[in-house]
Amino acid sequence: MATFQPADPAYDSRVRASFVRQSMMKLIGASLEHVAPGAVDIRLPFRADLTQQHGFLHAGVTTSIADSACGYAAFTLMPPGAAVLTVEFKVSLLAPAAGETFVARGRVVKAGRTLTTCSADVLALAGGGEKHVLTMLATVMTVKNRSGLSD
Amino acid sequence: MATFQPADPAYDSRVRASFVRQSMMKLIGASLEHVAPGAVDIRLPFRADLTQQHGFLHAGVTTSIADSACGYAAFTLMPPGAAVLTVEFKVSLLAPAAGETFVARGRVVKAGRTLTTCSADVLALAGGGEKHVLTMLATVMTVKNRSGLSD
Amino acid sequence: MATFQPADPAYDSRVRASFVRQSMMKLIGASLEHVAPGAVDIRLPFRADLTQQHGFLHAGVTTSIADSACGYAAFTLMPPGAAVLTVEFKVSLLAPAAGETFVARGRVVKAGRTLTTCSADVLALAGGGEKHVLTMLATVMTVKNRSGLSD
Amino acid sequence: MATFQPADPAYDSRVRASFVRQSMMKLIGASLEHVAPGAVDIRLPFRADLTQQHGFLHAGVTTSIADSACGYAAFTLMPPGAAVLTVEFKVSLLAPAAGETFVARGRVVKAGRTLTTCSADVLALAGGGEKHVLTMLATVMTVKNRSGLSD
Repeated sequence: MATFQPADPAYDSRVRASFVRQSMMKLIGASLEHVAPGAVDIRLPFRADLTQQHGFLHAGVTTSIADSACGYAAFTLMPPGAAVLTVEFKVSLLAPAAGETFVARGRVVKAGRTLTTCSADVLALAGGGEKHVLTMLATVMTVKNRSGLSD
Repeated sequence: MATFQPADPAYDSRVRASFVRQSMMKLIGASLEHVAPGAVDIRLPFRADLTQQHGFLHAGVTTSIADSACGYAAFTLMPPGAAVLTVEFKVSLLAPAAGETFVARGRVVKAGRTLTTCSADVLALAGGGEKHVLTMLATVMTVKNRSGLSD
Repeated sequence: MATFQPADPAYDSRVRASFVRQSMMKLIGASLEHVAPGAVDIRLPFRADLTQQHGFLHAGVTTSIADSACGYAAFTLMPPGAAVLTVEFKVSLLAPAAGETFVARGRVVKAGRTLTTCSADVLALAGGGEKHVLTMLATVMTVKNRSGLSD
Repeated sequence: MATFQPADPAYDSRVRASFVRQSMMKLIGASLEHVAPGAVDIRLPFRADLTQQHGFLHAGVTTSIADSACGYAAFTLMPPGAAVLTVEFKVSLLAPAAGETFVARGRVVKAGRTLTTCSADVLALAGGGEKHVLTMLATVMTVKNRSGLSD
């Protein structure tokens, strides 16, 4: 694991302040579980209204928490005043998203001046065990001085 | 554009019956707009509780309708009794998802016996114009005879 | 299809000058077939030393011409002095790459100031027919003022 | 790290026999460095005829060894008589591929009956140090009883 130095000592409060403005996270019931330089975990309890036709979490839901975990993992390393924007992501669905609680672990793989590559894994927790249900690679952009865009 | 022959003449009603069981689609307010062999469109009106921190639709939301549009586009070509499962998808975010209404157009690129490759584009509609906000490539699996899994 | 205005009227000769410096393209026998604003086609005749274990072109070979086609399609729209860098790509392999000649068609989907999204399709030509063997989505970066990097 | 049990005790010789039939690997000078259940490493010395226009290895070359490493990592777990086919891959390019030697480390993330998800990382080695230049996620298919296709 790489060790990262945050460019902004207030990274933790900036992530938390931005996360609460993601109304989609509130809609699905997701919460920030862990924030560290280059690493953010997001937790989501299972809810029946988040499922696809077979009763598993919809891939769009597990992708939502993986995307936010990646974006905020990158954001922990950004300088003050920067905004975070996801450029693209790629998702492999490893197993049906069945479980009681889900955790998305976003990690910075490589931090660059403009672009940061992150990975995220979503684990399904149930009965003391865990199952790996999703893995993501994402490219996240540091946006500066763009009118109206800040985090 | 390829022309596809559905293996099941009842493909339309099967797609619609499965779609209403996707409670995630109901939660975000998405509806089926168009169903044809190899093509499914899903419509989603903007809602403030679907956004990320800048007020645009969360990428997980636009990905959700793109994923469902791809999966059901593939499903239109599957034989009776088969279930549909997304294996993986890859998403490029072309522009911030700002608009009044969003349409995800899922299309089959190549239909195979076990795996089908689909693409989806999400358009943001506002004031009579449209903007291309997301493009997806997805791999969808035809699942047969798996206990408890059907559509 | 979008219509693009090149920022540099000399885009064609810049693409051609850069392409001949890609020694990998020479090694595999690829050539530029078509250059237009936002669009580049690369042609590759089949050769037995480019194959994987079943006698089809190795996916790394079809990916190579798709990547170069995407990169140069983006490069046709870049300002003088800029260099082109691929950030990431995602590839779906639609059919075994069997054929006499292969053509990769790179197209700009969305051109931005820093990042450009492109798609590429690789067709296998044989006996007058064609088969779609690969589709790619790529993110390409415009690099300016980076020491030693130009095209 | 998961521990995998090979379905075929002769997995090592099957991988090696198939690898030597990949003439593309021979063309670029790649060799098998390590074969274990669920893990294959491929080594490639730098060569000037494998480069893109800036003198770095072409992304298609690093992708080639990553794809073969993923495919053979999956193949180590396949039953006798099965053939391996890459369905799709997604590649993030983390740094320019500059170095003396390159190693692609393919690993099985999740092995399934029909589909296996793998990851690969390509490291550039130079002067005793190493740099992470590419990361891949790939979906690999186990093909059985398909006429003429075996490994």
